[in-house]
Amino acid sequence: MHLQDEIAQQPAVIERLLGQGRADTEAAAAAIRDFDPPFVCIAARGTSDNAACYAQYLFGHDLRLPVMLATPSLHTLYGQPADLSRALVIGISQSGEAEDVRTVLVDARRDGALTLAITNFDDSPLAQAAALHLPLRAEREFSVAATKTYTAQLTVVAMLASALADETEHWDDLAALPGLARDTLESSEQIADWAERYRYSDKLVTLGRGFNYATALEISLKVKELTYIASEGYSEADFRHGPIAAIDRGHPVMLVAPQGPTLAGMADMTRRLAERYAEILIISNVDDLLRAGTQALPVPAVPEWLSPIVSVMPGQIYAMQQALARGYEVDKPRGLSKVTITE
Amino acid sequence: MHLQDEIAQQPAVIERLLGQGRADTEAAAAAIRDFDPPFVCIAARGTSDNAACYAQYLFGHDLRLPVMLATPSLHTLYGQPADLSRALVIGISQSGEAEDVRTVLVDARRDGALTLAITNFDDSPLAQAAALHLPLRAEREFSVAATKTYTAQLTVVAMLASALADETEHWDDLAALPGLARDTLESSEQIADWAERYRYSDKLVTLGRGFNYATALEISLKVKELTYIASEGYSEADFRHGPIAAIDRGHPVMLVAPQGPTLAGMADMTRRLAERYAEILIISNVDDLLRAGTQALPVPAVPEWLSPIVSVMPGQIYAMQQALARGYEVDKPRGLSKVTITE
Repeated sequence: MHLQDEIAQQPAVIERLLGQGRADTEAAAAAIRDFDPPFVCIAARGTSDNAACYAQYLFGHDLRLPVMLATPSLHTLYGQPADLSRALVIGISQSGEAEDVRTVLVDARRDGALTLAITNFDDSPLAQAAALHLPLRAEREFSVAATKTYTAQLTVVAMLASALADETEHWDDLAALPGLARDTLESSEQIADWAERYRYSDKLVTLGRGFNYATALEISLKVKELTYIASEGYSEADFRHGPIAAIDRGHPVMLVAPQGPTLAGMADMTRRLAERYAEILIISNVDDLLRAGTQALPVPAVPEWLSPIVSVMPGQIYAMQQALARGYEVDKPRGLSKVTITE
Repeated sequence: MHLQDEIAQQPAVIERLLGQGRADTEAAAAAIRDFDPPFVCIAARGTSDNAACYAQYLFGHDLRLPVMLATPSLHTLYGQPADLSRALVIGISQSGEAEDVRTVLVDARRDGALTLAITNFDDSPLAQAAALHLPLRAEREFSVAATKTYTAQLTVVAMLASALADETEHWDDLAALPGLARDTLESSEQIADWAERYRYSDKLVTLGRGFNYATALEISLKVKELTYIASEGYSEADFRHGPIAAIDRGHPVMLVAPQGPTLAGMADMTRRLAERYAEILIISNVDDLLRAGTQALPVPAVPEWLSPIVSVMPGQIYAMQQALARGYEVDKPRGLSKVTITE
């Protein structure tokens, strides 16, 4: 099964990126510093768009760089996009073949923007179209549901932020990541023991906030891709003011709640969900909170800014175990193709 | 029933805004031109966030202004937001009491940004915190589910874009809007005749693209708020590459597909959904496409850039009729409060 293999490869991919990718990243950071963009625009779709969401929070927090997400249809359908001439424009695509993402970069580069591609293939159209390319070094991903390329994208984003911030501490944090990813995968093995309980659940809500808003969106997407259920990811702040009304007894809700500034809100949300007798699945490294859930999906202690890279893994494994429990084809979900091409 | 009344008031609210709001809007546009921001940042939650999505496409398309959506948690929880000092920072909130939206504006204004509030109350905290305020002039909205304040927000955004573009044609287009809104409400009365068919449906997908991506998100939210079902809004481009896999026989899918550059893609999506025997509900002003759906929700001919203001109305009425068919409390859905306060 490719999916299982590729989930298991994640620590090695991260390790390879940290070992081989630093020089490229430092060079890209130098070019970006030189260009001195007032803001960043990121074009991406699907899983890669969730990596863009992580970049939005990390670049804002660590570099004070405002990040907007692109509006590809203004480039491809309307032919009248926003002025990105002074921006750093980043395209993220596993295959590097996302045609609308490429069009955003081509338009922006023609207008004067600094362009950067993050893909798994040096010779892909997106990598070729951009002034700078940071490869994912993840080797080919066979499973249609992206896992190792997602965490590789996050790692590249985290490395780029570290190079731009030019702080030694960041690189020390990053060096611990492969080991933490291994620990996470190991402690996620127990998910197989209880996944069957949710075999007939046809809804899932996944919540996160701040850095882990991206994680909630990505886990939600992975579950949707692999099990076809109504799986929605929310910012916990948006969820509490409306969509929580739909949660009644037995509704599975997954919370991504590692140590950090978002923890208090996530703990409060856990209490509210318990009052509604929801099934609460908690991804956290805080023992008290883990005990408050129906199911504990523990992750190791990790600096919060890097927590999205490990906290997505229990969600990937949950999605895979649900697909297995339901007897679905795991590597080739129906209706999905590996390469996303939108005109 | 407040909700029904407030939906019906929309043409009058738009007419009042166009009549009384133009001078304010021109003054705000002059201040913005003076400030000459390289980009815009919009802070908003829930329904107001969907108005922000409309602004992102309209400002990009008509003014070439890049628009980012704010990351409120970087302001409120992390205390380390992106540098918005050179931006136009807009806060959108019906009540003007969204505390995290206000914090984004307070932070940005302190750092030198030009700030603008769009709210229904001149004396609200958000209006008071901003350098500029454009009131919605919608009179008090009693129903918890926002309708007339949403279309008022879109109208203010459209007026501001027109004042900034300084094109007479834009104002001519706008002048026709109250009449077009009346026509839309009238032709939406037939929704009551067939709404019961979907009484037991527990899922809805709503699709749009470009200017009407916002409309898809807002209709999806309205249905979720009023009927508690798993209701998801997507960009048609994202939907076709994955989530479409979940659509099988009888799954209701609503498409927002008025005349314009997005029409070809929406028509192609309609064919794909028909192959899956989905229940297709089409909001459009194109007769051929309307006939291809299970249900036709016609809207009048309208310039595409203004179509979101009328095309959301059949969706509002569908959401209300679903709540009525299910015997739900329409004005006070469970779990919702009118004022959204997130720390």
